[in-house]
Amino acid sequence: MGVAAWVADGACAGCLVTVGLMSPDSPVVALLGSPDVVPPPNLAQIEALATVRSCTADDLGSALPGADVLLVWDFFSRALRDNWGAATADLRWVHVCAAGVDSLLFDELRESDIVVTNAAGVFDQPIAEFVLASILARDKQLHLTRRLQRERAWKHRETTRTAGTSALVIGTGGIGRATARLLRAVGVRVTGAGRAARENDPDFGTVLLTDDLVSYAGEFDNVVAIAPLTPQTERMIDADVLSAMRPHAHLINVGRGQLVDEAALIAALAAEQIGAASLDVFTDEPLDPESPLWVMDNVAVSPHMSGDVIGWRAGLAGQFLTNLEQYLTADGPLVDILGNVIDKQRGYVVSGGRRAGDSRL
Amino acid sequence: MGVAAWVADGACAGCLVTVGLMSPDSPVVALLGSPDVVPPPNLAQIEALATVRSCTADDLGSALPGADVLLVWDFFSRALRDNWGAATADLRWVHVCAAGVDSLLFDELRESDIVVTNAAGVFDQPIAEFVLASILARDKQLHLTRRLQRERAWKHRETTRTAGTSALVIGTGGIGRATARLLRAVGVRVTGAGRAARENDPDFGTVLLTDDLVSYAGEFDNVVAIAPLTPQTERMIDADVLSAMRPHAHLINVGRGQLVDEAALIAALAAEQIGAASLDVFTDEPLDPESPLWVMDNVAVSPHMSGDVIGWRAGLAGQFLTNLEQYLTADGPLVDILGNVIDKQRGYVVSGGRRAGDSRL
Repeated sequence: MGVAAWVADGACAGCLVTVGLMSPDSPVVALLGSPDVVPPPNLAQIEALATVRSCTADDLGSALPGADVLLVWDFFSRALRDNWGAATADLRWVHVCAAGVDSLLFDELRESDIVVTNAAGVFDQPIAEFVLASILARDKQLHLTRRLQRERAWKHRETTRTAGTSALVIGTGGIGRATARLLRAVGVRVTGAGRAARENDPDFGTVLLTDDLVSYAGEFDNVVAIAPLTPQTERMIDADVLSAMRPHAHLINVGRGQLVDEAALIAALAAEQIGAASLDVFTDEPLDPESPLWVMDNVAVSPHMSGDVIGWRAGLAGQFLTNLEQYLTADGPLVDILGNVIDKQRGYVVSGGRRAGDSRL
Repeated sequence: MGVAAWVADGACAGCLVTVGLMSPDSPVVALLGSPDVVPPPNLAQIEALATVRSCTADDLGSALPGADVLLVWDFFSRALRDNWGAATADLRWVHVCAAGVDSLLFDELRESDIVVTNAAGVFDQPIAEFVLASILARDKQLHLTRRLQRERAWKHRETTRTAGTSALVIGTGGIGRATARLLRAVGVRVTGAGRAARENDPDFGTVLLTDDLVSYAGEFDNVVAIAPLTPQTERMIDADVLSAMRPHAHLINVGRGQLVDEAALIAALAAEQIGAASLDVFTDEPLDPESPLWVMDNVAVSPHMSGDVIGWRAGLAGQFLTNLEQYLTADGPLVDILGNVIDKQRGYVVSGGRRAGDSRL
């Protein structure tokens, strides 16, 4: 931002307009938040570069007209779909502060020229750690130990050596890759599953075809679901796959609840077709208090927090700011200058694309 | 064993003598077990090489006269001390199937020419995994999550990124080294503490003097106690060290309970001088049902099982067999041909010595 000036803009009805230091041609950023969500910690920095219209789902319709950029800070919001008619031709870029864009995408947005970017990268390492923690906790029987502790029961048991066990990581994006690297670092034998089969992948070695999941699901001690939710991946882990898994197998879902047929999973756990599940995501969230998953001994239920380490919101906000600086200063088509551009037909960032910087936690 | 013959020996009173294939000069091995402990899974292989006198603490006194070797399979037994008078000049070698030899050693044994070997190596990787599991479980709040699960409470929280945190590993033997390597593999910044300060250690980088513990205990997020129990290390983690630690620090004890002043630890945890403890060992085991440690929210109590992965007893037995084969076939002083020879004055295997083979789990 070479030239900066005081700009006041009171023209937006129903939304808060921030007054700040910015150039006359500074973009208008509609910031979709929520009363339940703290604002971006770097809001002042964003406001130094753009006219920010802070809004919620209730007044997004008033904030969108004339907005160049939409920042979906309330990252599971479906409000853009509901207010699509209010977006004008000015809207060129939507950034969503989530790794999965399944809540955001809809046909009109897919078919538009609007570039969509996401938070790829921020959650890679934190979720990888959560997966490793889940596997180790199961192998070392930490939850049973804690239960015995409540009973003051001293009961020596033999546990499972984690190194040398196997894991299938379904999903070969950034989180899947970070997970594969971390599991390999502690000696777990990792195989990937993705849309395209291949050998000699740097992180996975072998990547198997997700379409054939049922044919090889029985070969692994741990199965990690971290694929994006798309029509192709929805309920990919169904009753057939679950019954093909090893009786002691551990399913870890840190992707989306809808990757798994939840009713079939509950049945498989109850019938001990599989050994354990660590579930951070569910078909409906928050998980229904009546769900049997809460009370199953071999299930760990966590509230969609696997990637949310201290500093995660600052990471998300910093990533958007980096992309905004690119938007303002770089020349060329948006798809080339922005990081983490979503392939809207596939529903995720395609590997090989530019990554948004300095956001790793 | 080149020459083998059927040898029957019924001369031992009060102990079971096994008849097997062995040479006329096969050694007599007193195998100190317990009614509560399953025999070595490779007993038949040991019996093919030696005359085995299986006994317990009750009849060790009958098994010792004429025994060349004592295998302390009931590894915390103090029965040798109690039956020391029954050992004859034949006794050349005592092997204990534990990493720590604190229960075994006593002055007369120290001063004798008997070579003592231990199970160094078997527990290295399993205990390292247990330490990592304990750190990740604490950082990811898995125990709190499980408690909330019992209440069917969906409560999103922010957790701690483990990579980038720091750990002090007190004890630079095999288990400490394996722990350092594993923690480093997941991005934890590791420092060692040992008897001799040094830089550029291949596993620890820096090793600080254990004597100065109080001066640097405050610099670490995690403090792992895995030193051998000796007069020098007993209660090394005392009230002063605990009060020097960070308020959020996590103490992991997988060594011996007596490394820590347990009363001071209870006080420090109750006063939130430190943040959490994962304790696998205690001053008295089993832990007294009245101990306040059982009911502290920030304490994980496990029953001295950190290294006991499936196959551990086979690993211990295999390690003794390997050493026994060395004993039978190699030439030279026992201290040179056996693996895992204990420095009886120091109370542990000194690094640089021969290691017993093929026992890693």
